[in-house]
Amino acid sequence: MAISVLLVASTPEPDRTVAAAARLCYSDASAGDLVGKMKGEDISRFIDHLRGSGHLSPFEHAVFTFAVDGISRVCTHQLVRHRLASYSQQSQRYVEMKDPEAVVPPSISSNPAAREIFDRKIRESHEAYKDMIAAGIPREDARYILPHGWMTKIVVTMNARELHHFFSMRLCRRAQWEIRCLAREMLAIVRDKAPCLFSLAGPDCVVRGRCFENRPCGSPFSNVDEVLSE
Amino acid sequence: MAISVLLVASTPEPDRTVAAAARLCYSDASAGDLVGKMKGEDISRFIDHLRGSGHLSPFEHAVFTFAVDGISRVCTHQLVRHRLASYSQQSQRYVEMKDPEAVVPPSISSNPAAREIFDRKIRESHEAYKDMIAAGIPREDARYILPHGWMTKIVVTMNARELHHFFSMRLCRRAQWEIRCLAREMLAIVRDKAPCLFSLAGPDCVVRGRCFENRPCGSPFSNVDEVLSE
Amino acid sequence: MAISVLLVASTPEPDRTVAAAARLCYSDASAGDLVGKMKGEDISRFIDHLRGSGHLSPFEHAVFTFAVDGISRVCTHQLVRHRLASYSQQSQRYVEMKDPEAVVPPSISSNPAAREIFDRKIRESHEAYKDMIAAGIPREDARYILPHGWMTKIVVTMNARELHHFFSMRLCRRAQWEIRCLAREMLAIVRDKAPCLFSLAGPDCVVRGRCFENRPCGSPFSNVDEVLSE
Amino acid sequence: MAISVLLVASTPEPDRTVAAAARLCYSDASAGDLVGKMKGEDISRFIDHLRGSGHLSPFEHAVFTFAVDGISRVCTHQLVRHRLASYSQQSQRYVEMKDPEAVVPPSISSNPAAREIFDRKIRESHEAYKDMIAAGIPREDARYILPHGWMTKIVVTMNARELHHFFSMRLCRRAQWEIRCLAREMLAIVRDKAPCLFSLAGPDCVVRGRCFENRPCGSPFSNVDEVLSE
Repeated sequence: MAISVLLVASTPEPDRTVAAAARLCYSDASAGDLVGKMKGEDISRFIDHLRGSGHLSPFEHAVFTFAVDGISRVCTHQLVRHRLASYSQQSQRYVEMKDPEAVVPPSISSNPAAREIFDRKIRESHEAYKDMIAAGIPREDARYILPHGWMTKIVVTMNARELHHFFSMRLCRRAQWEIRCLAREMLAIVRDKAPCLFSLAGPDCVVRGRCFENRPCGSPFSNVDEVLSE
Repeated sequence: MAISVLLVASTPEPDRTVAAAARLCYSDASAGDLVGKMKGEDISRFIDHLRGSGHLSPFEHAVFTFAVDGISRVCTHQLVRHRLASYSQQSQRYVEMKDPEAVVPPSISSNPAAREIFDRKIRESHEAYKDMIAAGIPREDARYILPHGWMTKIVVTMNARELHHFFSMRLCRRAQWEIRCLAREMLAIVRDKAPCLFSLAGPDCVVRGRCFENRPCGSPFSNVDEVLSE
Repeated sequence: MAISVLLVASTPEPDRTVAAAARLCYSDASAGDLVGKMKGEDISRFIDHLRGSGHLSPFEHAVFTFAVDGISRVCTHQLVRHRLASYSQQSQRYVEMKDPEAVVPPSISSNPAAREIFDRKIRESHEAYKDMIAAGIPREDARYILPHGWMTKIVVTMNARELHHFFSMRLCRRAQWEIRCLAREMLAIVRDKAPCLFSLAGPDCVVRGRCFENRPCGSPFSNVDEVLSE
Repeated sequence: MAISVLLVASTPEPDRTVAAAARLCYSDASAGDLVGKMKGEDISRFIDHLRGSGHLSPFEHAVFTFAVDGISRVCTHQLVRHRLASYSQQSQRYVEMKDPEAVVPPSISSNPAAREIFDRKIRESHEAYKDMIAAGIPREDARYILPHGWMTKIVVTMNARELHHFFSMRLCRRAQWEIRCLAREMLAIVRDKAPCLFSLAGPDCVVRGRCFENRPCGSPFSNVDEVLSE
């Protein structure tokens, strides 16, 4: 099973909401009026302007909730380090892990020797987990033997400002393949829902035209489509 | 002009979204399935259960954006101290204050002597502001003479967990009348939109049945309706 | 190897700093003056007063940095869910795991059958990890086979307000044994360093004299010493 | 009276603490060992490396607490918008404003006509405040007539990562003079206390060698000393 990312909720009209909130700062009109009266073209131009100058605080008014399945606990341990977001994750304390389900890294699935080891160990670990539960060990402790690659599910809520930060960190080639894969799915979804807010997003090579890493990867992306089509 | 609070955006189906995210933690099903399949009655019972035990983290998945007009800068200075929220406020650096507009505290509007002083000073301060601008002082500096009660506009985004915290602090009789008035308007709006999430909300006297203040006000509220009908 | 918690840095005179900051709110004096002039007894009384009424925001000015060794990644995945804190964790992407090192849950160490399974699987998983690395798999992917119980190291910075929240959640008997153990070590350390700030800390049964869980554990703690001596 | 900024507390050895925490991520050693064993030169090189590549999360382990006097409420309203920080501010609800004390913008103090208006209005506003209190109006309401420029006191705790963000926003020539003045004082203090962490800090023109504003000011700074000596 591969990763599955579903948008379960989001601010309706995210582009318009952000643009109206930002306009309020510089205007005499009420926010209520601004929401109704801004035209599509104005919204687009105004949001480009905000993003170009790095004034991203109004982006926080657009919020997105994703349901993620088929992701490893390696990846969620990285994901939940993003603190300006909300998470609800399947608990291994309360839910019994009935089947052996792990995320297989591409480097392993494409290497027959490693793949054979990996598959066998996943199965054996799950058997050890079940054996320990049969021996009276609580789930929350038996899981200490389950591999990091074990599958989990998580609901994630992030606003558009934090999403931009997340994309800049996690779509960089130096991030690990699994969280990059998650980030790509999320970016594709929010670009569809909020084309102005996310017309330009991704690592510094795409957004700032330049890499700030001490050891650049050597193959910068040229644009968002290239990031998404990987 | 009185305070005006408008809900400009919110998570569609906030009760359902929160319940599905919370269920995920204790379930084998995917979050996507859970969103579609929970029944109204289950949602209500499950959310009561979460709130009763103080497990409010899933409440963060429901997010509300308000446009507030006719509020003083006294009140917004208190409001923006709530850090788990997003704000866009009308700038006195960029927007010229054309008319004398201040929020009048009820204690002043009901006291003829004080009211007379207040109205006169508001007018005179605004004249001083205009005179200084005419003398070449930039807006951002001329406003140093405008009174704290000056009116402003602000867009606020808060999730349901932070809203509960906000209501517990700011609907207490010890909070100042203006932010209590704002909080009441916000609570009335979100109760309508998310009846399960906010069926019980307010200060500790209402939610916990007990006051923890060192110096209680002496007249605890008995229920949410009493808080709202003040 | 057992968990090891070391205080590597903290606000000097945390009790005094918090008391002075809080006094500023209600006083005409400057903060600088207040820091120097408050007496030990006043500090203690004033901090009790703040904590009693739940006015914990000044507690944020006292900050503590801990170095934690010998903790599992099960536990750090729970720990880093506390978002109002700062973390630096040993990376399994960059650091090779040279020896088989896992945290053994007490329920397993005291159960010979489970213990035998556990120890064997830890060893075998580590061998599989090394075999995959030998087969050309990068560390960051080979670790997908390492068990959740694998040991890690982490530096944690939290302020006294968040510590109180952390203790209230993680010293409750319903929290898992490993994070409770971590929390106990941390509480013992900060009580020594900041006796006023942490004279009363722990789950609701200790701090509020009452449990708010839907399903209480049935054996509430009577005081902090009982929590610490477990 | 001018602004006064005092460092009331900070992480002892902030450079060393950050370097040790960051090294932990890439090392086999324990954090405790790392704190003791890193040499000054290593610390400096390692921190430069982190800052150069934008890996600022370990900077959060160094925390600074400032007491600020002689600042206007215009400035604190801007300041407290930085949400990753802790604040305790003198309350106008509890503390009576005994004397007319306001911050005078330089544009006003250097303009005799404006200065005359300003001083008179500050005095008159304070008289109106006292008259309303004499007429039975509570302090918290009488203050609605006090000018935005009124002086206040505030205690601020920020970590080195947020300080860098604060400096990048508030030392830019587009920020208002008062918060720039506050930021300069704070930067001078932390550079003295943590020379490695703050060897390079300030707006993008200084730190990134380039301005990202849509409307640049036209006179970029060339280095930190120029920022500080303004």
